[in-house]
Amino acid sequence: MSAEAKLQELGIVLPAAPKPVAAYVPFVRSGDLVFTSGQICLKDGALAYKGKIGRDLSPEDGFQAARICAINTLAVLKSAIGSLDKVTQIVKVTVFVNSADGFTAQPGVANGASELYQQVFGEAGRHARSAVGAPELPLDTAVEVEVIARVAE
Amino acid sequence: MSAEAKLQELGIVLPAAPKPVAAYVPFVRSGDLVFTSGQICLKDGALAYKGKIGRDLSPEDGFQAARICAINTLAVLKSAIGSLDKVTQIVKVTVFVNSADGFTAQPGVANGASELYQQVFGEAGRHARSAVGAPELPLDTAVEVEVIARVAE
Amino acid sequence: MSAEAKLQELGIVLPAAPKPVAAYVPFVRSGDLVFTSGQICLKDGALAYKGKIGRDLSPEDGFQAARICAINTLAVLKSAIGSLDKVTQIVKVTVFVNSADGFTAQPGVANGASELYQQVFGEAGRHARSAVGAPELPLDTAVEVEVIARVAE
Repeated sequence: MSAEAKLQELGIVLPAAPKPVAAYVPFVRSGDLVFTSGQICLKDGALAYKGKIGRDLSPEDGFQAARICAINTLAVLKSAIGSLDKVTQIVKVTVFVNSADGFTAQPGVANGASELYQQVFGEAGRHARSAVGAPELPLDTAVEVEVIARVAE
Repeated sequence: MSAEAKLQELGIVLPAAPKPVAAYVPFVRSGDLVFTSGQICLKDGALAYKGKIGRDLSPEDGFQAARICAINTLAVLKSAIGSLDKVTQIVKVTVFVNSADGFTAQPGVANGASELYQQVFGEAGRHARSAVGAPELPLDTAVEVEVIARVAE
Repeated sequence: MSAEAKLQELGIVLPAAPKPVAAYVPFVRSGDLVFTSGQICLKDGALAYKGKIGRDLSPEDGFQAARICAINTLAVLKSAIGSLDKVTQIVKVTVFVNSADGFTAQPGVANGASELYQQVFGEAGRHARSAVGAPELPLDTAVEVEVIARVAE
């Protein structure tokens, strides 16, 4: 099943890709790689999850926040190449987790992003990943996700 | 206007690129990509801004610190390829912001770097970017910036 | 001396590469680049160093932790390409250091990884690097290291 069909089956409607609001842009393509900017957990124009996992939010909240960030990276990738069916590999994912003191379950949070990529792209969605804690993130987002993807011509 | 000419117009004199002081080096080129090491806000041999934005330093201080880090990345890129006119695209920028508790305006700080790249390179300076908080950074620098740039032969 | 021979001379026995335990994998190769997932300081199935450098652990502990993370990245690279002798360049290393309040000697910790790459690969082991603080890391590992390496066919 194609990635676009899979998205439909999952009932995921991609948001509009974020507009460039500053001197940076949502993605840059270089050769067959697309680098996305870090995406926060914006949904319908507002942050779906704000604050620190382990204090303000549960690990399950964090998982959902990471999933939303990942959906936003898909919107960016689609805006870059027209159709997600042109993604040939999710290469590298970095997940920054807004972490309360003593919260060390960043991998479980990051799975919210990782599992989405696998659901949408299958084998091609299995990526290298780093999950790390952050003390603060932009606008107090619970999670921030950036991606490097390989794409077909 | 070329990037080198633009630098002159902006009155920016690049410092000497940092020397390798350890088992790592200021940049590695791989194909048409140059990866820089993370640059701190050294100016004339000392850190221009030390400490946490939102406690020791203002957001405007952070903006200036990010700009200095970005200038240092330009010095590294120039040492890599001889002339900044050979930079064909700033691909990806990661900005680590030394953040006090509750400081969530990392994007505004990171703009100090992003706007410099755009001023110097125009369209080719518009990059993908992640801005994230860090609890501590090397030597207490206020900001650390790393870059991936695409370069011509 | 080849990288594999050098490893032997150093008395380093690579562990089994970590198995994929989730929707992500230990590495992805794209063209001549291999991206590893972030590696923590697992040794013989347990974390060798847990907690924050500057509070629970000394800088020397951090150096050793970074070295173990780097050894784990070598195990991943070897599983990716069969022999470390096919590594033509360590391109970029990112070292996340679990940092206590006020600990700003991340570069010294990161040298535990950087020096290992240089010992094993010589000139080809000299890489671009970012060393940054993190407030929390997965499972309370003291250090996490990710690598981009260039490899021969």
